[in-house]
Amino acid sequence: MHETPIGPESVAAAAQRLAPWANRTPVMQSRTLNSLCDGTVAIKCENFQRSGSFKFRGAMNAVLSLSDEARARGVVTHSSGNHGQALALAGKLLGVGVTVVSPRTAPAIKLAAIEGYGARLVLCEPTFASREEHVSREIAHHGLTLVHPFNDWSVIAGQGTAAAELIAEAGPFDVVMCPVGGSGLLAGTSLAARAASPTIRVWGAEPAAADDARRSLEAGVIHTSADPVTIADGLRSTAVGERPFSIFSRIVERIATATEPEIIAATRFVWERMKLVAEPSCAVPIATILSGAAPVKGLRVGVILSGGNVDLSALARLLAESP
Amino acid sequence: MHETPIGPESVAAAAQRLAPWANRTPVMQSRTLNSLCDGTVAIKCENFQRSGSFKFRGAMNAVLSLSDEARARGVVTHSSGNHGQALALAGKLLGVGVTVVSPRTAPAIKLAAIEGYGARLVLCEPTFASREEHVSREIAHHGLTLVHPFNDWSVIAGQGTAAAELIAEAGPFDVVMCPVGGSGLLAGTSLAARAASPTIRVWGAEPAAADDARRSLEAGVIHTSADPVTIADGLRSTAVGERPFSIFSRIVERIATATEPEIIAATRFVWERMKLVAEPSCAVPIATILSGAAPVKGLRVGVILSGGNVDLSALARLLAESP
Repeated sequence: MHETPIGPESVAAAAQRLAPWANRTPVMQSRTLNSLCDGTVAIKCENFQRSGSFKFRGAMNAVLSLSDEARARGVVTHSSGNHGQALALAGKLLGVGVTVVSPRTAPAIKLAAIEGYGARLVLCEPTFASREEHVSREIAHHGLTLVHPFNDWSVIAGQGTAAAELIAEAGPFDVVMCPVGGSGLLAGTSLAARAASPTIRVWGAEPAAADDARRSLEAGVIHTSADPVTIADGLRSTAVGERPFSIFSRIVERIATATEPEIIAATRFVWERMKLVAEPSCAVPIATILSGAAPVKGLRVGVILSGGNVDLSALARLLAESP
Repeated sequence: MHETPIGPESVAAAAQRLAPWANRTPVMQSRTLNSLCDGTVAIKCENFQRSGSFKFRGAMNAVLSLSDEARARGVVTHSSGNHGQALALAGKLLGVGVTVVSPRTAPAIKLAAIEGYGARLVLCEPTFASREEHVSREIAHHGLTLVHPFNDWSVIAGQGTAAAELIAEAGPFDVVMCPVGGSGLLAGTSLAARAASPTIRVWGAEPAAADDARRSLEAGVIHTSADPVTIADGLRSTAVGERPFSIFSRIVERIATATEPEIIAATRFVWERMKLVAEPSCAVPIATILSGAAPVKGLRVGVILSGGNVDLSALARLLAESP
């Protein structure tokens, strides 16, 4: 096991840093879900986290970890989604200037939320090249520090605090699970799991239509998904990050996948049966539990329900169309 | 203060009876709501209660309070909504036969839920006379015991356990609030408040389009709403019950009202900002807090968020149509 700049102890340090700022979100169970999967599933409700998702943990930990000088210059990121909102809120709370580079095609409601937290919004074309170019320009011209959505050690350590709280409150578990996009949450969850126990298993869950993390884990090198099409908009990243991969690839046992109809059905289950407003991305682990792709029979399982920032009208239309 | 068959101590007895059965639901706060109303609002999330609403407390307490003989004969009620589901679940858990008389015009999804819990469903015409006739016939022919949705002492005492838990966990409060339909919850909340403190104020909230409880409280006698039209389908009862009125009319200080647009906006607020799946009926107290009809500036307020059984598709259409 070669060394990375952060380890299981980094999650505890992040937790201490975040304690005055992050919500200690509740852990819930569903009798119906437990009965359907014949296991015991404890769900960490990060949809109730500040800014509406676990992303606040990583973004806030990253900004809190900056030098005074770097804080004075400000931070930049690229995101049209939860990380952008999370970093914008972190900056607002700490008086740090935040610039978010977003594709001009991003949903107006998300861009409005980013600006609502007081961040400066820079629109780019919806391509990787345009995004990189704008971020590089912001860094070069304004001396901003990049807070990458997932390929960042402080962000990874911060994300791990969700699983750490879950295990402390509702463990011990046989398995902890979370969704996988860029894999910052999966890497942080891996560290938190190892901090708690040498044997607890760590599983990821991702859309079958964007299964690059599963392929990467199996191959031992990072594979990509070309332009993945999935309702789970938080998990559309084309590849996991090198930094989180260097952590989770040594710890994660399995990455289960869910089809689009399974993700939609699980989203409906979380809303109708559990009464939680959750993003389709967050329902992916539940989808793999319900389908059996994540075999939890007889196991005690902790799951991170990662966020609740949805465009109600759009999701409503989707649910109305699906049986 | 003349005597009623139940008093503040009855809520504690109900709580003891319900402890092995009911969920101890979480209490949450919203920074945004607190900031908007300039008060401190603690929300008891009964949308996470078994059967999806606080109604389980009253129905379960009523069935647990029956003699063995009465349990063996079974129970009957009339409801197309949450009380029907709650009583059906109570009967399933205790092995007691449940008959629910529902108008044939009730939403198929609610009738399916009642039957899903194993209750016998008897369809009637959507009139008061037809409902009464069918219930009377069930009682006469099968010796069933009526468990009325709100005009029942055991049901009232059971509903009070929600406020009792809220006050114990998050009090002391200046005010406790809940929505008002038939007023079983308001009466139970009144008893729980008096059990906790002689001075805590108790407020109700109802749609302006169905403000019979407000008029009844002000007049000191029960007034009716003729065929109220409101999105808050759980609060469409035409009059409060005599039994709950005999309790709450001596204790409640104020019943605030909300317009239909205010109720819809509050429902959206609870979904989008608080990430809770809640019925429009449950959002009525929040609506009166946001509008100022319930003036909570500087106060510590406990609110019962009463349930989360919604037809997602119908509600989604409503939210999509409203700005």
